[in-house]
Amino acid sequence: MTTVSLGAGPANARDPLSLIFAALADPTRRAMLTRLRQGPATVSEIGEPFAMTGPAVSKHLRVLERAGLVTRGRVAQARPATLRAQPMQQVAEWAEEFREFWDQRYDRLDDYLHTMSDDPEDQS
Amino acid sequence: MTTVSLGAGPANARDPLSLIFAALADPTRRAMLTRLRQGPATVSEIGEPFAMTGPAVSKHLRVLERAGLVTRGRVAQARPATLRAQPMQQVAEWAEEFREFWDQRYDRLDDYLHTMSDDPEDQS
Repeated sequence: MTTVSLGAGPANARDPLSLIFAALADPTRRAMLTRLRQGPATVSEIGEPFAMTGPAVSKHLRVLERAGLVTRGRVAQARPATLRAQPMQQVAEWAEEFREFWDQRYDRLDDYLHTMSDDPEDQS
Repeated sequence: MTTVSLGAGPANARDPLSLIFAALADPTRRAMLTRLRQGPATVSEIGEPFAMTGPAVSKHLRVLERAGLVTRGRVAQARPATLRAQPMQQVAEWAEEFREFWDQRYDRLDDYLHTMSDDPEDQS
């Protein structure tokens, strides 16, 4: 496998955790999930604070739904969206596995600054 | 703003947390970060378990670097990659804000099953 996916591959070819991370890689979708913490909402309710069209909201909701972060109601007209936060637990648990390394961040910052000081002419 | 980004937009136009989530939305990149928990590694060391070419590894590393998840050394030949886990803390903290909802998951599953039972002819 020598190809490199930058997150633009076909969504149905991807593993669950990749689908979740890709769904969260958008500030509007993250804001929608935060909105849904207040309770289920319809497409027009969700779109309002973003001044977004219904089709644009629906497209974002489909991405969230595919990742398991949202379920939609069955009533044809409204189909209110409901938060499903269980995938968030997977995200948190995956990130938590790196906790020992983020706790070491000051040591690592020291290392990094030391590396930089080896090259005093660096302009960036 | 009515456009919908599915994670394929120009990386430099994106906010830090979106860059981090997009970088994590690939199983190979997540496996690379797990590998780097053992310590800094060169491109060829990182590529070995994936049978991946150097350029493909470098491309993945650039995505991780842009998200702040990896730093590269300065030595031209080797440029060993080092894990920087601080962005992972942001990911964990963001996901943790949803903890109260994933703790309620059985209630919500009940709600969901109740919704489904309203429509007994559903085939899926």
